[in-house]
Amino acid sequence: MDLRKCLAEAIGTFWLTFAGCGSAVIAAAFPQVGIGLLGVALAFGLTVLTMAYAIGHISGCHLNPAVTVGLAAGGRFPARDVGPYIVSQVVGAVIASAVLYAIASGAPGFDLAKGFAANGYGAHSPGQYSLFSGLVAEVVLTMMFLFIIMGSTHGKAPVGFAPIAIGLGLTLIHLVGIPVTNTSVNPARSTGPALFVGGWALAQLWLFWVAPIIGGVLGGILYRWLSEEPSAQVTGIAPAAPAE
Amino acid sequence: MDLRKCLAEAIGTFWLTFAGCGSAVIAAAFPQVGIGLLGVALAFGLTVLTMAYAIGHISGCHLNPAVTVGLAAGGRFPARDVGPYIVSQVVGAVIASAVLYAIASGAPGFDLAKGFAANGYGAHSPGQYSLFSGLVAEVVLTMMFLFIIMGSTHGKAPVGFAPIAIGLGLTLIHLVGIPVTNTSVNPARSTGPALFVGGWALAQLWLFWVAPIIGGVLGGILYRWLSEEPSAQVTGIAPAAPAE
Amino acid sequence: MDLRKCLAEAIGTFWLTFAGCGSAVIAAAFPQVGIGLLGVALAFGLTVLTMAYAIGHISGCHLNPAVTVGLAAGGRFPARDVGPYIVSQVVGAVIASAVLYAIASGAPGFDLAKGFAANGYGAHSPGQYSLFSGLVAEVVLTMMFLFIIMGSTHGKAPVGFAPIAIGLGLTLIHLVGIPVTNTSVNPARSTGPALFVGGWALAQLWLFWVAPIIGGVLGGILYRWLSEEPSAQVTGIAPAAPAE
Amino acid sequence: MDLRKCLAEAIGTFWLTFAGCGSAVIAAAFPQVGIGLLGVALAFGLTVLTMAYAIGHISGCHLNPAVTVGLAAGGRFPARDVGPYIVSQVVGAVIASAVLYAIASGAPGFDLAKGFAANGYGAHSPGQYSLFSGLVAEVVLTMMFLFIIMGSTHGKAPVGFAPIAIGLGLTLIHLVGIPVTNTSVNPARSTGPALFVGGWALAQLWLFWVAPIIGGVLGGILYRWLSEEPSAQVTGIAPAAPAE
Repeated sequence: MDLRKCLAEAIGTFWLTFAGCGSAVIAAAFPQVGIGLLGVALAFGLTVLTMAYAIGHISGCHLNPAVTVGLAAGGRFPARDVGPYIVSQVVGAVIASAVLYAIASGAPGFDLAKGFAANGYGAHSPGQYSLFSGLVAEVVLTMMFLFIIMGSTHGKAPVGFAPIAIGLGLTLIHLVGIPVTNTSVNPARSTGPALFVGGWALAQLWLFWVAPIIGGVLGGILYRWLSEEPSAQVTGIAPAAPAE
Repeated sequence: MDLRKCLAEAIGTFWLTFAGCGSAVIAAAFPQVGIGLLGVALAFGLTVLTMAYAIGHISGCHLNPAVTVGLAAGGRFPARDVGPYIVSQVVGAVIASAVLYAIASGAPGFDLAKGFAANGYGAHSPGQYSLFSGLVAEVVLTMMFLFIIMGSTHGKAPVGFAPIAIGLGLTLIHLVGIPVTNTSVNPARSTGPALFVGGWALAQLWLFWVAPIIGGVLGGILYRWLSEEPSAQVTGIAPAAPAE
Repeated sequence: MDLRKCLAEAIGTFWLTFAGCGSAVIAAAFPQVGIGLLGVALAFGLTVLTMAYAIGHISGCHLNPAVTVGLAAGGRFPARDVGPYIVSQVVGAVIASAVLYAIASGAPGFDLAKGFAANGYGAHSPGQYSLFSGLVAEVVLTMMFLFIIMGSTHGKAPVGFAPIAIGLGLTLIHLVGIPVTNTSVNPARSTGPALFVGGWALAQLWLFWVAPIIGGVLGGILYRWLSEEPSAQVTGIAPAAPAE
Repeated sequence: MDLRKCLAEAIGTFWLTFAGCGSAVIAAAFPQVGIGLLGVALAFGLTVLTMAYAIGHISGCHLNPAVTVGLAAGGRFPARDVGPYIVSQVVGAVIASAVLYAIASGAPGFDLAKGFAANGYGAHSPGQYSLFSGLVAEVVLTMMFLFIIMGSTHGKAPVGFAPIAIGLGLTLIHLVGIPVTNTSVNPARSTGPALFVGGWALAQLWLFWVAPIIGGVLGGILYRWLSEEPSAQVTGIAPAAPAE
């Protein structure tokens, strides 16, 4: 395992969590001129778009345990590197939440009880959506996220555009899902804020590991089967870079 | 007919309908921070942008009966494959509405009578626009959509950018048309929600098959004539991929 | 003069005026969920982005008399074709306003007196900006628009990206200028609505011919001088396509 | 030092400051339909995107003293040219503020005391964020801005896409930071409005020179170390254009 790749994943996931959750905590509900859910959706997507161009050529720019597992299931990433990538991503996300806390707590009226961009369901869903709704939404959205990642980085797709498709795909996912679960599709991004909010956020964190990883595996397998790519188990890892 | 292409069209149209209509049903009018019509317009466009990069190299990524018919009229798609594509698109859209229903119905206060993103005119137009207004809008907007598709996938257009032009073109179309008809320009996308809403939505569904298909045919023919491409009837299908 | 180029300019300017002004008239102030000035700014920019990919390879996609004159001043367009291009653009814009009127007038409460997206200054500026403010804004914004067009289509700029730079540049221009004059930077786009609104809109129309053309000429000359391109008067038209 | 490069930097920074701050002053809080912080964030990003395509091939399109210093620290820009670039950028920004003042002061109710888009902390932060919050935010955001610039212009990144990554990266930075400091990450952009507002804006200006430059240096060094590029001190300036 290349340490540079792990560091790139940690920095990238730091950016995803810091700027994505930061836009929600700091700017979404600013009086009169706040960026709203549309601005938060754009922010999350742009974290991935910017990092995919900046570090795609170093680590593949997963920034997300569900992406790493899904790409492994899709035959695009070696299983032995899944662990180090996930650890790096979670470390980056936790540091991001700490830095965001340092900034956000410097404003009058800051209150962790407002959620700090943690993910939740039921009483802690922004729109009080049920656990079942949250489960279905996270599985389906992550499945399609992997489908987009697998497809736009396929050897027959136009070269260089995948970061646009993947980044704006994450924006799209947030345009649909924020009222349901605050949108995770990324266990690392969920873990950072949950550690600071504690209580209910930690108690509900399991869903945002289980559902995105199930969805990611489904998406990786679905695309591989649709595109009739050779199995990684049989022929080795496909040469196409995961996200570049 | 390649079954993989049909499956790709079904998955892509699932995504267009699920995420496009989902953004409208779940997030458009969320209190204080909702994404509004601008967010819905962006969502619809990004469904096409993301899928065009993911499956454009498999099926051409039509996701829309009016696009399929329009490309056939424009000499870019074989007439014999129009039927299977349309069936696949409608199946994908109906499944999308079912999954969206499963998620959306898990929120307190969910009510199909709010429209479930179905298209309508007259009393069921978001802005009470007349049938005539809806007809003109759907014909003109779909015509220009096909014009953009035909042009940006032309052999002389820059390679790889068509999904951006086409996806953001659909965003633009929604920025204009949502108050008029909730914006269809896509009979499959209209059929999914109409089956769940029933009643008026089914009674008005005819317009969202007739007008987009007329517009699509006009756009395909207009561009072919403008660009002086050889007729498909005479020389066979042009090699340019419809949406790449 | 190639008639296909004139027709392409007419269709493209139709789209710019229909969809740009249409988004303002139909969707900007829709209750609760309207797209606002941000949505209108995005719509105008996307009309150019989509058409630049669709017809850039046919006519260069000017869609704007100030662009045509500015490119001629910058040595990128032959002076003898300026007239036919401008006529085509104005015809397209007027037809666009007629079609938009047909749609918009089908809604209850439609009223031409609300402005129909016409441009204005003083009492008819959206924010009551003075004539002087409007003049400076239109000159500076059009100058920078031509600067962007000249630069992003320069032979040393990356190939294929100019429609993104130019289209989103027009979005940016609208993000700044709508409260000042409703943003013209395009005499054809201004002429269409003014013919329907009449009265004050026709009386103020002169500014939206004079200021954008002055700005366009300044921008074309400034960039040509900065980039040390050979003069068109001496060496003929540079081969770089104006907008591709 | 090439005077053309300095002029390009002055024009580009004029555009960044004029259109970025102009969107905030003129359009952000327009009644009912204002573009809000999301529109301002988009405007700042698009100034860089448009100029990077227009003048990236002339000067590298820094438009920002923190970028110039950060690229020098990252081994991508010669130290001897840092001074002329910074002077050009500041001159462009000051002229931009003067032109913006000329336009904005032509509206009834214009008042410099509303801030004129100057940056601030504590009582002059839009959300009353502390000096410490402002310092951390500006350092972290500028550090990641340079990280994105260095990465997306790296020789292994896809060619031609860097202006999209960098421009939308600046949009993302504004989506997070406007409530904290009004977002600087650019000492030149901060200096222009501060000269017009005077008083507190000039008194707080030091932070918007110190923090962005610290962040820029950190980002340049971090990326250079991560990507294992050869040191500029040892091997000379890397040939990759800073932003093209």
